[in-house]
Amino acid sequence: MKVEIKEDTIIALATPPGVGAISVIRLSGPNSISAIDNVFSGKIRIKDAKSHTIHYGNIVENDEIIDDVLVSVFRAPNSYTAEDSVEISTHGSPLIAQKIISLIINNGEVRLAEPGEFTKRAFLNNRIDLAQAEAVADLINSRTSVSLRGARNQLDGLLSLKVDLLRKKLVDVSSFIELELDFAEEDIEFVRRNDLTFKINEILVEIEGLLDSYSFGKVIRDGINIAIVGEPNVGKSSILNYLLKESRAIVSDIPGTTRDTIREEISIDGILFKLFDTAGMRISDEEVEKEGVKRSRETVKNTDLILFIGDINVGFSDQIGNELRELNQSVKILKVLNKTDLVANITFLEDFRISAKTGDGMTQLLEGLKKSAFSEGAYTEKDAIVTNIRHYNCLVKAKENLMRAVKTLSENLSGEFLASDFRAAEIALAEIIGEVTPEDILNNIFSKFCIGK
Amino acid sequence: MKVEIKEDTIIALATPPGVGAISVIRLSGPNSISAIDNVFSGKIRIKDAKSHTIHYGNIVENDEIIDDVLVSVFRAPNSYTAEDSVEISTHGSPLIAQKIISLIINNGEVRLAEPGEFTKRAFLNNRIDLAQAEAVADLINSRTSVSLRGARNQLDGLLSLKVDLLRKKLVDVSSFIELELDFAEEDIEFVRRNDLTFKINEILVEIEGLLDSYSFGKVIRDGINIAIVGEPNVGKSSILNYLLKESRAIVSDIPGTTRDTIREEISIDGILFKLFDTAGMRISDEEVEKEGVKRSRETVKNTDLILFIGDINVGFSDQIGNELRELNQSVKILKVLNKTDLVANITFLEDFRISAKTGDGMTQLLEGLKKSAFSEGAYTEKDAIVTNIRHYNCLVKAKENLMRAVKTLSENLSGEFLASDFRAAEIALAEIIGEVTPEDILNNIFSKFCIGK
Repeated sequence: MKVEIKEDTIIALATPPGVGAISVIRLSGPNSISAIDNVFSGKIRIKDAKSHTIHYGNIVENDEIIDDVLVSVFRAPNSYTAEDSVEISTHGSPLIAQKIISLIINNGEVRLAEPGEFTKRAFLNNRIDLAQAEAVADLINSRTSVSLRGARNQLDGLLSLKVDLLRKKLVDVSSFIELELDFAEEDIEFVRRNDLTFKINEILVEIEGLLDSYSFGKVIRDGINIAIVGEPNVGKSSILNYLLKESRAIVSDIPGTTRDTIREEISIDGILFKLFDTAGMRISDEEVEKEGVKRSRETVKNTDLILFIGDINVGFSDQIGNELRELNQSVKILKVLNKTDLVANITFLEDFRISAKTGDGMTQLLEGLKKSAFSEGAYTEKDAIVTNIRHYNCLVKAKENLMRAVKTLSENLSGEFLASDFRAAEIALAEIIGEVTPEDILNNIFSKFCIGK
Repeated sequence: MKVEIKEDTIIALATPPGVGAISVIRLSGPNSISAIDNVFSGKIRIKDAKSHTIHYGNIVENDEIIDDVLVSVFRAPNSYTAEDSVEISTHGSPLIAQKIISLIINNGEVRLAEPGEFTKRAFLNNRIDLAQAEAVADLINSRTSVSLRGARNQLDGLLSLKVDLLRKKLVDVSSFIELELDFAEEDIEFVRRNDLTFKINEILVEIEGLLDSYSFGKVIRDGINIAIVGEPNVGKSSILNYLLKESRAIVSDIPGTTRDTIREEISIDGILFKLFDTAGMRISDEEVEKEGVKRSRETVKNTDLILFIGDINVGFSDQIGNELRELNQSVKILKVLNKTDLVANITFLEDFRISAKTGDGMTQLLEGLKKSAFSEGAYTEKDAIVTNIRHYNCLVKAKENLMRAVKTLSENLSGEFLASDFRAAEIALAEIIGEVTPEDILNNIFSKFCIGK
């Protein structure tokens, strides 16, 4: 149920906006080459150029040179989109790029590309499947080496292969049922019901495995949210600052860490930790503080992990402890006593003892954070991993339908029901790789890409 | 006196920083091709690839794929730098670009490029002259279509050709003098002193022409500064806002207009106008206002044009008028009466009557601004124009030396003096195109480029 392939030609700036040494404009579609020949003046016409060759010349508008450029030619199907495609490498001025794009649109059958349209065409032309197309966006947006590897693994097709394998197993099983339905009058049983149940359970185990990988996949793709919580003056900000400084010393692969008042991001061994410093936790009557309290409570509700900080001379606030459990019953809490430099001999039930001032115990805390990021460390980025909530939901749908099939079998209901369950499960799996994906879902996926991708 | 060409290989990100569909990494130098072969895995080795061809493959680190890329090969001398050069087109993630650059530096004889080093190499390898190299930076930073055309014209060599022509004429003249010096004992006059003076004056006229073009060239390259001045409540901000709105309707070719509290930029027919809204002009005793007053006075001192605003029912403030003349005696002042909607029949000596509220008279004001941008409209972007203060200063130096030569001639002084004047003039002209340019000046020019250019 792939959507129809559009036959028109698209153009967009492919490099990040802004000033640089060079910018690249990309065209794809049947008119790419004629459109460039309309405005390009070089040694040869691009229509006579071989695929994968580069040609120097000028982009000319009314005898006036807009820029001297390099034109790269890619002939179908050997291009990113599998269509005829051209890349124009210009001087890196936004004004030049804009002028050339306008010129080409005005002088050829070309229109501005929609967000993600190049990758969408790559998908529609079977260059990559949908999970791989989604991996392209993940790849570009990767902020740490671990998330990059996760996206790379998905783009290389590890998840797609696994899902395809499950689909094939499912088709094998369901084909017997379909066959039985074809010969329904003769009441032949082509496969024993017990064998069928066994085979379905085999598939279910593998789906479960993929579903389990999501807790790992989510962390490698999106990182892990950590709320730092505690009474005033226990040293929340000092700990945050220590972690920020420390992580920048350990890794240097965050290109442009976002900093805002409520969130800081650090990368520890390639895992992205999003640290939220909660301003205050307790209900307050003062108008001004209400918004802060609301935000803190939201943060605690949605976090993956809580660093609950106490002062080593005072211990942990019971009130805050109770509030945390009330707000988020399932979240993992790491209890950390700060200020070991002002040492006390009182014993509390803590996970870590640290001093954000001297750095005492911080190595252990960092290790603890890394361990907490993954519930079970059974996966590596070399396995097929589910990192995307859409894929996760498709797998849940497949699982539910297969479990219904098992139930149908145990109740000895008609093959019609079984066939319907199987088909629903198949469709759910096919949606992951885009074999059967409604156009609105496709549009939603690609609209989140940047223009030019 | 060109500096020695470095034999090493450089690498840098060539596209603007940030997230996009693709990023391009550029290498130049003798090890470009071997360095890429150390980390690239494709159908063929890049060392076996022809110039101007593109190759798909993977960048691999310890058997792990960092990214699938396109590698473009440019063999010396057919590259931007005239050296062996390679461009790697990657997925547009800053993290990927950073990883690949580090990988290549760690695995080959390659170092990170300095700002402008690719263009500097193009200059040192005689691909372009110095004025053209400077035009590359102007081209990239062009904010309006007019400045773009000016830079293009300089990159295409119009100024260089003109300067070269003048140098040749100068050499023709000076060679006679040198000849006379060689035969000094024989006291031969190879050229009549009157003819010499005539020829020098011819050159001087052309240099004057170029110097005159600078007032035009400066405007097309850098735009024109306009200070909006007047009493409080005469409508300075309304006029500024009207111009901003209007100019955006007229032209849309400003990619990312900078907006800050004191400066707004608009483009009228491709000319960049930088509008400064002065907060207050008069000396005030209040501490808080002092800084604003100081800034306003600085603005007036350095502006190219003043829009002096008055209320049509009140006229112009004499005090401000006097202060303006005191601060900047040479600046052109356009007197504008605002609020024609609240009409009055009093006559003042104004240049324009407008209403920023209704738009009355604004077309005339815009025309007036355009006319004021150019003292004399005798130039077009198709002429050789001086846009760069460095070139202007070199021409002034050439002019001074030639005028001294004329004086030497009129005083019948020795040929030695003449020869020295000519040589100094020649060197001044040669500095424009980089034939004789001290290394520190070169370094200063290229250090202002972005990295990767």
